[in-house]
Amino acid sequence: MKNNAILLLSAPDQKGIVHAVTDFLLKNDGNVVDIDQHVDLDNQLFFMRVEWELSGFRIPHDKIGEYFQTLVGNKFQIQSTLYFTQKRPRLAIFVSKYSHCLHDILSRYQSGEWDVEIPFIISNHQKLSSIIENYNIPFHHIPVTKDTKAIQERKQLELLESNNIDFVVLARYMQILSDDFVSQFPNKVINIHHSSLPAFVGANPYKAAFDRGVKFMGATAHYVTADLDEGPIIAQDITPITHRDNISDMKRKGRDIEKIVLAKAIWSHINHNVIVHGNKTVVFE
Amino acid sequence: MKNNAILLLSAPDQKGIVHAVTDFLLKNDGNVVDIDQHVDLDNQLFFMRVEWELSGFRIPHDKIGEYFQTLVGNKFQIQSTLYFTQKRPRLAIFVSKYSHCLHDILSRYQSGEWDVEIPFIISNHQKLSSIIENYNIPFHHIPVTKDTKAIQERKQLELLESNNIDFVVLARYMQILSDDFVSQFPNKVINIHHSSLPAFVGANPYKAAFDRGVKFMGATAHYVTADLDEGPIIAQDITPITHRDNISDMKRKGRDIEKIVLAKAIWSHINHNVIVHGNKTVVFE
Amino acid sequence: MKNNAILLLSAPDQKGIVHAVTDFLLKNDGNVVDIDQHVDLDNQLFFMRVEWELSGFRIPHDKIGEYFQTLVGNKFQIQSTLYFTQKRPRLAIFVSKYSHCLHDILSRYQSGEWDVEIPFIISNHQKLSSIIENYNIPFHHIPVTKDTKAIQERKQLELLESNNIDFVVLARYMQILSDDFVSQFPNKVINIHHSSLPAFVGANPYKAAFDRGVKFMGATAHYVTADLDEGPIIAQDITPITHRDNISDMKRKGRDIEKIVLAKAIWSHINHNVIVHGNKTVVFE
Amino acid sequence: MKNNAILLLSAPDQKGIVHAVTDFLLKNDGNVVDIDQHVDLDNQLFFMRVEWELSGFRIPHDKIGEYFQTLVGNKFQIQSTLYFTQKRPRLAIFVSKYSHCLHDILSRYQSGEWDVEIPFIISNHQKLSSIIENYNIPFHHIPVTKDTKAIQERKQLELLESNNIDFVVLARYMQILSDDFVSQFPNKVINIHHSSLPAFVGANPYKAAFDRGVKFMGATAHYVTADLDEGPIIAQDITPITHRDNISDMKRKGRDIEKIVLAKAIWSHINHNVIVHGNKTVVFE
Repeated sequence: MKNNAILLLSAPDQKGIVHAVTDFLLKNDGNVVDIDQHVDLDNQLFFMRVEWELSGFRIPHDKIGEYFQTLVGNKFQIQSTLYFTQKRPRLAIFVSKYSHCLHDILSRYQSGEWDVEIPFIISNHQKLSSIIENYNIPFHHIPVTKDTKAIQERKQLELLESNNIDFVVLARYMQILSDDFVSQFPNKVINIHHSSLPAFVGANPYKAAFDRGVKFMGATAHYVTADLDEGPIIAQDITPITHRDNISDMKRKGRDIEKIVLAKAIWSHINHNVIVHGNKTVVFE
Repeated sequence: MKNNAILLLSAPDQKGIVHAVTDFLLKNDGNVVDIDQHVDLDNQLFFMRVEWELSGFRIPHDKIGEYFQTLVGNKFQIQSTLYFTQKRPRLAIFVSKYSHCLHDILSRYQSGEWDVEIPFIISNHQKLSSIIENYNIPFHHIPVTKDTKAIQERKQLELLESNNIDFVVLARYMQILSDDFVSQFPNKVINIHHSSLPAFVGANPYKAAFDRGVKFMGATAHYVTADLDEGPIIAQDITPITHRDNISDMKRKGRDIEKIVLAKAIWSHINHNVIVHGNKTVVFE
Repeated sequence: MKNNAILLLSAPDQKGIVHAVTDFLLKNDGNVVDIDQHVDLDNQLFFMRVEWELSGFRIPHDKIGEYFQTLVGNKFQIQSTLYFTQKRPRLAIFVSKYSHCLHDILSRYQSGEWDVEIPFIISNHQKLSSIIENYNIPFHHIPVTKDTKAIQERKQLELLESNNIDFVVLARYMQILSDDFVSQFPNKVINIHHSSLPAFVGANPYKAAFDRGVKFMGATAHYVTADLDEGPIIAQDITPITHRDNISDMKRKGRDIEKIVLAKAIWSHINHNVIVHGNKTVVFE
Repeated sequence: MKNNAILLLSAPDQKGIVHAVTDFLLKNDGNVVDIDQHVDLDNQLFFMRVEWELSGFRIPHDKIGEYFQTLVGNKFQIQSTLYFTQKRPRLAIFVSKYSHCLHDILSRYQSGEWDVEIPFIISNHQKLSSIIENYNIPFHHIPVTKDTKAIQERKQLELLESNNIDFVVLARYMQILSDDFVSQFPNKVINIHHSSLPAFVGANPYKAAFDRGVKFMGATAHYVTADLDEGPIIAQDITPITHRDNISDMKRKGRDIEKIVLAKAIWSHINHNVIVHGNKTVVFE
């Protein structure tokens, strides 16, 4: 298992940031294994992801953040987050009745494709409990109605906190989280929703897309913000549709693209490849 | 050059239509070279495209429509349109200042990829006139302002009529046609517009898409209806975008997808592969 | 559950086939719900898939094949196969050590997306047995070595026969089936293999593709023939690759495309949408 | 017009390269506008592209290469190439009889999408001369036979030299260049060829792909090496194919993908985004 540190940072663009960051690492014997950056010239913003080996690095783990901010960050007004590859991200999954994304996530988890821990899964229904049990993951049935939503969200938040959850995946969880909930996990709740070109909203988007005769079904994985389905996009993909596809075909094809796009977004998140700025993302590869 | 007839038809779905149509052709010695149909089970609609050789067919060209409607169409409430492959579709192009779609259309025309005639090209600007001259196609400069729109559209319509134009392509023509104009060419005016996933509207859609951090740029070719950009979709495609693409990159990549999608739609139209029903299309291949 | 018959047929192209087939159905009160055909003009071949409701159809189920061949098929040299939607296809899965395709298949099976029965799963390894047990599907561990191959294949064939298996899916089964095995299940064994653009063969195709710097990884699902990996293609898809993807990334992305393409091929097969002719397929949608 | 310098470099991977390069620029008041790098961990190779403003940079243009190599390059065994954005790349196009790539290139050139100069176009046929004349670009008709190949290539090379050509694009030039020719323009001759998944070679690849029933047509743009069609890949893309596409359709769809992929490769080349190492490329975006 790798023993690396990863620093994600954003700052107003200015001369010398890359040099200052690499200088900080070089002077302290940090061996850089990956570095990537991006400049948004239109908005004069600088983004960077740098990963280096901790073995031989002179600054103790628990001091790296402080030293970096003091020696480099403050000078360039850098906002940074530090991760360690030996800290496996702890993921809580929320589901309702659809199983395709859940199955896909759990099969990747079981095969070792993803280096995460899944302490528990929450659902507002019992329907998928037997699938979850087969994977030996604790299951919490927390039904939600309009009246019980506030109290049930408190239960959910307690579970997240007591289990030190790092991020949440809404794997076709058909409930809207309250602003209060979302604000406690900024850029840490990932949602997947289907969409098409052009986009349709409303009660029955598949029917609307069918009636319009769209040639694509799409899926968008994004961080949840107070503005439903409008948070920063992490991953998107599409699948072609023809007039021969009825609504049932569109849903079936939609499921495939949903699960693949959600997995792609989770991969980017757990590898600390995503920097959010405003309502958009930089997704390093 | 092929000497075939093509019949496009739509009808309420019912037993025996395919049999009746093929019976009509077989009894009159029509050799079918291509047949395709589609049933929209949700709406109980039947669509069909059949192409057969005129050589040896017993019914004279100018009587086929009448005979078919009398012998088959009326019984099944069929709406049909008849085309002959020896009649080359006559296309009028409308452009403004962007040249990418125009170049692409003219290069296909010149190389013989498309079996069409282009009697003239209209633009509200002079900018592209020299390109057009190089192809030896008559050019009409018809500038349009809010005040002159009605009178200029009348000029355009006169040109369309006196040249027996079959269909119009708006190759990035930045003007909105009046409802009156559109109603005279139902499902005969093809437009191309860019779009993304999700879709953005308004004055600066590229900026909006950039600020949202979309991962795709798309293009949609559709028949123009009174409801701007909302007519029946003929073809769509997308091209991936990352955070590294600035607005200028998005426009450049958008141009490529626009010209290819527009060409695909024109190909479907001139081969009589498209049936419009309500606000959607059946596009046979 | 639908109670329909499906007829797949191929024949030398000639006048009157569609009419004769639809006449046969109409005369016997068969209500056609779907019809599709294709003419390969280059090779003068005709292909057709027609589906009709058995309710009210005059010919008894067990006589349809005989009547059709006598009344229609012989006249046009038609080769046909008849299926009934109430007969759920019986699928045997062969796996080795990779779980991604297996998980994907079983999750679709469990959710009811596919109308199939899976009487058992065979593996030459024990590794995936616990996954299979969770789905309550009988598991047969049949290890294969060079020396035991012939005898083990006989065991496999006995299982297929005694369980009335209709088709086999090699879900990343890392063994080559003998010609004898394959010849007993013509166009009934589906394999998935990765590929790229251009294609690489040999012991380490991922390494070869990486060293060439390909921009795509692909997957091909095909019927197994005596000529390894060269059988009729049912489905293909690709996923983009950049220089940033190392071999491990290519394998991870390859797995996603493999499982989706294999599922697409199985969907086409179980819906009787595929006609094989020579070494290629017609795949109706 | 931008007045920037671009440095492309590759080196054995080692600690401190990024720092050394950015130090060199910072110390000499170079304002970095874009920086990207890639580490091939498997082969321990480091690649970098850095672009900075020349305005205010302390080292004179004609000394930058020497200073960089002395102060930074030698220490890290860096191989580097230096470009200036004010030096418009000079492109010679070679064509035969197919016009789609030529039209596409010239329309981008004329619209100003590409910042290149095209001093002349060479063809072994007269067929496309009138297209070229419309763009006011000198045209050289240099027919090639087996017997005259050596002497005609010498003519071509003289034209390239006397016109200070930076790179050559074979826009469906149906001749194979000699090893001698290629060796004089290493990684400076871009070719486009069609391909499919799996790949087909030989006299009639479209026919072979059709007979195999491939589901994709692809195109590959690559630098020409002595090993025909096997040079480093710059760009690739694919377009879906179904059984409904005959060979003529495959060619038509192939042309679209060829011209778009070739344009993408040229864009990467003229923006100095491509580093070749061994037989593969790093293509920065």
